[in-house]
Amino acid sequence: MLIGNAVVGQSGGPTAAINATLAGVIRGALEADCIKTVYGMRNGIEGFANKRLIDLNSVFASEEAFETLEQTPAAALGSCRKKLPDPDSERPEDVAFYQKIFSVIDEFNIKYFFYIGGNDSMDTVAKMSRYAEKTGVEIRIMGVPKTIDNDLALTDHTPGFGSAAKYISTTVREIVRDCGVYTVKAVTVVEIMGRDAGWLTASSAIGRIVDGAAPDYVYLPERDFDIESFFADIEKAFEKHPNVVVAVSEGLRYADGRYVGEGTQSGSTDVFGHKYLAGTGKALELAIKDRFGCKVRSVELNLPQRCAGHLLSMTDISESRSIGCEAVRAAVSGVSGEVMVFVRAETENYACGIEHRSVRGIANATRYVPDEFISEGDNNVTDACCEYLLPLIEGEYPVKYERGLPKHIIL
Amino acid sequence: MLIGNAVVGQSGGPTAAINATLAGVIRGALEADCIKTVYGMRNGIEGFANKRLIDLNSVFASEEAFETLEQTPAAALGSCRKKLPDPDSERPEDVAFYQKIFSVIDEFNIKYFFYIGGNDSMDTVAKMSRYAEKTGVEIRIMGVPKTIDNDLALTDHTPGFGSAAKYISTTVREIVRDCGVYTVKAVTVVEIMGRDAGWLTASSAIGRIVDGAAPDYVYLPERDFDIESFFADIEKAFEKHPNVVVAVSEGLRYADGRYVGEGTQSGSTDVFGHKYLAGTGKALELAIKDRFGCKVRSVELNLPQRCAGHLLSMTDISESRSIGCEAVRAAVSGVSGEVMVFVRAETENYACGIEHRSVRGIANATRYVPDEFISEGDNNVTDACCEYLLPLIEGEYPVKYERGLPKHIIL
Repeated sequence: MLIGNAVVGQSGGPTAAINATLAGVIRGALEADCIKTVYGMRNGIEGFANKRLIDLNSVFASEEAFETLEQTPAAALGSCRKKLPDPDSERPEDVAFYQKIFSVIDEFNIKYFFYIGGNDSMDTVAKMSRYAEKTGVEIRIMGVPKTIDNDLALTDHTPGFGSAAKYISTTVREIVRDCGVYTVKAVTVVEIMGRDAGWLTASSAIGRIVDGAAPDYVYLPERDFDIESFFADIEKAFEKHPNVVVAVSEGLRYADGRYVGEGTQSGSTDVFGHKYLAGTGKALELAIKDRFGCKVRSVELNLPQRCAGHLLSMTDISESRSIGCEAVRAAVSGVSGEVMVFVRAETENYACGIEHRSVRGIANATRYVPDEFISEGDNNVTDACCEYLLPLIEGEYPVKYERGLPKHIIL
Repeated sequence: MLIGNAVVGQSGGPTAAINATLAGVIRGALEADCIKTVYGMRNGIEGFANKRLIDLNSVFASEEAFETLEQTPAAALGSCRKKLPDPDSERPEDVAFYQKIFSVIDEFNIKYFFYIGGNDSMDTVAKMSRYAEKTGVEIRIMGVPKTIDNDLALTDHTPGFGSAAKYISTTVREIVRDCGVYTVKAVTVVEIMGRDAGWLTASSAIGRIVDGAAPDYVYLPERDFDIESFFADIEKAFEKHPNVVVAVSEGLRYADGRYVGEGTQSGSTDVFGHKYLAGTGKALELAIKDRFGCKVRSVELNLPQRCAGHLLSMTDISESRSIGCEAVRAAVSGVSGEVMVFVRAETENYACGIEHRSVRGIANATRYVPDEFISEGDNNVTDACCEYLLPLIEGEYPVKYERGLPKHIIL
């Protein structure tokens, strides 16, 4: 049994569930006999290097603190974006960096190191592990994934995605209702996050298999975007009803590789001489207005997609908590240098197991929406896609409010 | 006792609570002995003129239908934007218009007419009343207000505002959390609806009196916007923390009357030759980037402000329902040509009564955020403002979900 202290950090972009995973790690650490104190590092590995640690044992003495943490959006410990140097590098500054990190590990008697993050954070886990191995430091280092984008390899889905997908599917459905009240011809373009993978944009369609309320068309970055086919789609939708709603990924590109959001920017600058960064939705709004002359509106869902703590998928929060807890159990049992993953059972009803895989397999891969989830015509997702997505948004976390607003914890 | 049928319609922009008012009117009508059938008009007065009526008695036979209606955002009966002609006009098309409307009233034996809407809809109520009076038609015509903007005269606040304010204060607070995770200097500009009155933008600050989480500064359209003071405010906020968040109204203007959103558009056109309609947030994003060279992001809250049925203020929904119900009671007791209003009690704890006023007083007036609610320096709202707003967002409507998504009704 490896006895000592643990440290946990958060890194990369925030999600609405990353604190549920933090809560899971803390719960797991408090339960483990071999872990004495669990520290939180402020602002990830950057804060750790500067000994910006917080004793979490004292903060999480009550169940209420856990519950409030789970419903607090964004990384409660703060985050960072830091690319670690090659652990085999012999450049003096790189050697000094690792020496500094490992001197803090030594000083605080850290035997368990948990890092919650996306692709880049798993790279940190891989490099830290390599350095520990090379220098013979006895420490267990584990990665716990998070990203709203759902584009990590090895795992069926990612912690944080389900809540983002629930927010998106709920909000787009509300926009569909809103747009349906008038009888005049109008198009609404909803722009959704996901520069490379279309999982979030796809989730706007989930309502279709629930009660039919969904965008008319859904365009993913996995396919080349063609403006004439797009116009033809809208024309066809107008034959059915006057209020057309389309969901588009921020990452849409034409066949020649240009982003759709760049399309309307050429030569267009503001008074300061900036190139106008329009965004995909705005660009398509203008293109539709030009072609159809009808009322057009674009809505960029923007930051709330990753921080809407008031609307959390119970499935996501519960799984995000469990995967944190399981990371501690795995480490205590002797695992190191691995990342936790979800494995979906091949059963009729949704069930999901938690396992671990080598972190090297996750670090630089992207998982795209597969062909069978994209409709013929490249302008929608299939029912099979919606069936894959639906269980991830099911259940509602019972958010607690105080004087009209959701309660948050500040660490 | 005036015995006959009733009709109810919805008009103007949707809100998340306009269906709660519809539910209230239907409940009131079903309870009234003198009302036989309650009809809904599709797409407001336009649909009514074309006899597009739906029998609501049969739809609302169960309590469940009422509950689902109350949590369905956007006008379930559809809406319209129609300015009625002068009822005293002698132009043949105007006379014909009113004759058509009143022939439908006669054909369906309508004795009670309820119209839920904003300023323009109250104009419809006033003109219909005038025409009925002039022609001696025995009918009771009542207006029930709705608007997320909270800018109607005579009433303490408007049905629909509380839920929009709850959505805005919750979401802006989540954005504040999200922006707080990094240590690099960054400004986030949140653009909020309200072209003339700043009530919605003001509500972004409510968190300040709850747990301190609120934008650093809040800029309302009631005050001239000055870009140099704005830059100075940001500079000052940077002295306190690296992550600055400001809330701005879409309707901000410079002292010379130009909209801030116009500022960056001069000469800037897209490939189709359109003038770029940037929006206030985008314009300020570019201006800040230019001045400070730091990371800047703008977030336009957009349509979800008026249709986020998943996050409803219990106070708002309960009051919106009651005001609809009270409109029926008033009409049954003999009132006509009036609009229902909220009157806040001057008690320590929040309490609100429902009364009625002449519709002529509400039709073309705008209620602005008063001076005592705006801070010195014109860059924030006062605590008194937050205290006025807080009770309106309190309580959470227990939204029912089905397979991960809020249940909606389709009429």
